[in-house]
Amino acid sequence: MDIFEKLLKSLGPIGQHSDRAHGYFAFPKLEGEIGNRMTFRGKEKIVWSLNNYLGLANHPEVRQADIDAVTQFGLAYPMGARMMSGNTDYHDQLEKELSEFVQKEDTMLLNYGYQGVLSAIDAICGRRDIIVYDAESHACIIDGVRLHPGHRYVFKHNDVADCEKQLRRATELAKTSGGGIFLITEGVFGMGGDQGKLKEIIALKDTYDFRILVDDAHGFGTMGKTGAGTGEEQGCQDGIDLYFSTFAKSMASIGGFISGNKDIITYLRYNMRSQIFAKSLPMPYVLGNLKRLELLRNKPELKDKLWENVRKIQQGLKDNGFDIGATDTPVTPIYMKGSIPEATAMCLDLRENYNVFCSIVVYPVIPKGQIIYRIIPTAVHTDEDIELTLKAFKETKAKLDAKVYDVAEIPLT
Amino acid sequence: MDIFEKLLKSLGPIGQHSDRAHGYFAFPKLEGEIGNRMTFRGKEKIVWSLNNYLGLANHPEVRQADIDAVTQFGLAYPMGARMMSGNTDYHDQLEKELSEFVQKEDTMLLNYGYQGVLSAIDAICGRRDIIVYDAESHACIIDGVRLHPGHRYVFKHNDVADCEKQLRRATELAKTSGGGIFLITEGVFGMGGDQGKLKEIIALKDTYDFRILVDDAHGFGTMGKTGAGTGEEQGCQDGIDLYFSTFAKSMASIGGFISGNKDIITYLRYNMRSQIFAKSLPMPYVLGNLKRLELLRNKPELKDKLWENVRKIQQGLKDNGFDIGATDTPVTPIYMKGSIPEATAMCLDLRENYNVFCSIVVYPVIPKGQIIYRIIPTAVHTDEDIELTLKAFKETKAKLDAKVYDVAEIPLT
Repeated sequence: MDIFEKLLKSLGPIGQHSDRAHGYFAFPKLEGEIGNRMTFRGKEKIVWSLNNYLGLANHPEVRQADIDAVTQFGLAYPMGARMMSGNTDYHDQLEKELSEFVQKEDTMLLNYGYQGVLSAIDAICGRRDIIVYDAESHACIIDGVRLHPGHRYVFKHNDVADCEKQLRRATELAKTSGGGIFLITEGVFGMGGDQGKLKEIIALKDTYDFRILVDDAHGFGTMGKTGAGTGEEQGCQDGIDLYFSTFAKSMASIGGFISGNKDIITYLRYNMRSQIFAKSLPMPYVLGNLKRLELLRNKPELKDKLWENVRKIQQGLKDNGFDIGATDTPVTPIYMKGSIPEATAMCLDLRENYNVFCSIVVYPVIPKGQIIYRIIPTAVHTDEDIELTLKAFKETKAKLDAKVYDVAEIPLT
Repeated sequence: MDIFEKLLKSLGPIGQHSDRAHGYFAFPKLEGEIGNRMTFRGKEKIVWSLNNYLGLANHPEVRQADIDAVTQFGLAYPMGARMMSGNTDYHDQLEKELSEFVQKEDTMLLNYGYQGVLSAIDAICGRRDIIVYDAESHACIIDGVRLHPGHRYVFKHNDVADCEKQLRRATELAKTSGGGIFLITEGVFGMGGDQGKLKEIIALKDTYDFRILVDDAHGFGTMGKTGAGTGEEQGCQDGIDLYFSTFAKSMASIGGFISGNKDIITYLRYNMRSQIFAKSLPMPYVLGNLKRLELLRNKPELKDKLWENVRKIQQGLKDNGFDIGATDTPVTPIYMKGSIPEATAMCLDLRENYNVFCSIVVYPVIPKGQIIYRIIPTAVHTDEDIELTLKAFKETKAKLDAKVYDVAEIPLT
């Protein structure tokens, strides 16, 4: 049997719609400067799809730092893996500054967040060890867990009682396997916007012997008094053994980092396959992230403005009767009910007639009949953006309820 | 049991030497412009450790293109995954130009090579499918194979007879599993410098039903008449179903690409987890790679100069009695025998007294008593670099043979 032939019978959950969706719902092109308004198919849209939480992507100081770094070093330097030939004083400096900021002894930069998390899990967990993880963990965590040759127990999303149940099972198993327990969850869940119950999970350390890795991709820079993340927000940063964040969200760049006690970070430096066998984070991103971190620390007004916008749009949605679930972070889902054709027609109406561009999720990513829009407010959105968007959702939701979008086929492109 | 405590008993094969090796053999800092000479611990060294094969890292046109791209777009753009919000006309254009260059119908850019290969394997191989792969495959291939829930058969490195044996086993198994067969190998093996026997393996398609992915990280830009890689070199590019290369070597940047027939690339676009759930290749790298590809195509003198240097140093080493194994590519290993203290002392002598900086591999990465130096010639090395390096190896090898380096302990830092 031809292995390709079998694949091509179906392009998968999203790919099956590619003929009609490509370039519009999938692989759209947002053009112009990153910000609250961008160009989609030649027309200005209010954009709610980018994790540019603090508006750092196009902050003038950031743009200048990026140019300066590339002018001095180019995009190639340093070449090779960090361990072989890709190390510099600036890599060390960014690690030092991040350690101080997230209140950990040491930090290891990662050339890319996805493969960084995957290899961290892989480096830590041996055959006898047991992984306990949240059911709604990000794909990079799931792939790391999939690499694990030993047992894993998944707990119901953010369900502390079930988490404890799985820890109990893991503890029993560990007695015979001779391994340890590694718990993985997130600071802020990227789909629902709810915070991981870190404080309550960490409190389980009093009863169970485990270490915890927190992926705080959406919490770093947005949560906590200083922006140090969800551990700071919940007052339990000390209980997090390994703190991870990508630079791809509030830091508006690429790469990531993992922080913890010096000894375990040293271990990771020498044992993470995707870091030993692939190129170091390029210098412009190291210098660019140093500048972003400086602004993140020294310009609390950016986070204040983000939260002002978060409160305005979330309150506005609630006041208009929208279901935004359990979010207590900037990530703002809007839950609705409708068929795929209805979702398609409504999203098209939002984009084309109301000029509101946001992400939408439907079956088979979520159960049939559900629609989730996801709004990412940032510090650069304006009151007008929020008002127009609330108006757009109000009007299109009324059409959805009145079955206006219940049509056979929507021409997409 | 504390999962960290267990890990910290040993820092692993390389980490166990970290106390003495950190900053020197591991995580050294090469400073100054990327080139034939760089600064290590304040002193100029001839550098043979960087895969800057064509010298593009600091080519003036490349440096200017890099600056122009960052000036126009910054380092943040586009934000989000390619599928969600990270697509641009330039991403499409680079894919088109790469497809033409490597003679394939279509190409998908990858945000990073390591996780790209891993997810490509993962997206293609289902539970019933069987992977057949070369024993010396790169870590990213091995991690992709490790994600595979079905059977895998490894063949002895570059052994076509054993490859056929494993294909036979896989074919038998596929009859009952109902799956297909996916063969994975490399164009140029990064340690030994030998070419994968692509033509002979592809010829096995006459007898066995399988698809082949070739990782040509070291072959792209260095091998074949036009630099299109090892498939072109061996006249069997058409038989390669999926052609992968990173941009981290001859292209002197980051990211990668995978090329093949339009239908399978469309499938991959919609089903590769590390690409769907992580940020798109940043614009400066897209534009930077467009410029690098232009030079790679239009300046054959760069590849000619690379090969002139390859021939000079490989011939010089052979003339001086060195064992460089089976390399028929720019990757130049030098095989010696000696203990770890001897290897350490010799490498220290090479670096400190002869100012020659190259990579060295010892036990436990390779068997006890073996030493491998790895020389990466590039288009920017000079005749003087080559002569000084040959002299350095000749003299230090004489000392190694005379047991001069057979001392108890070497002070490293």
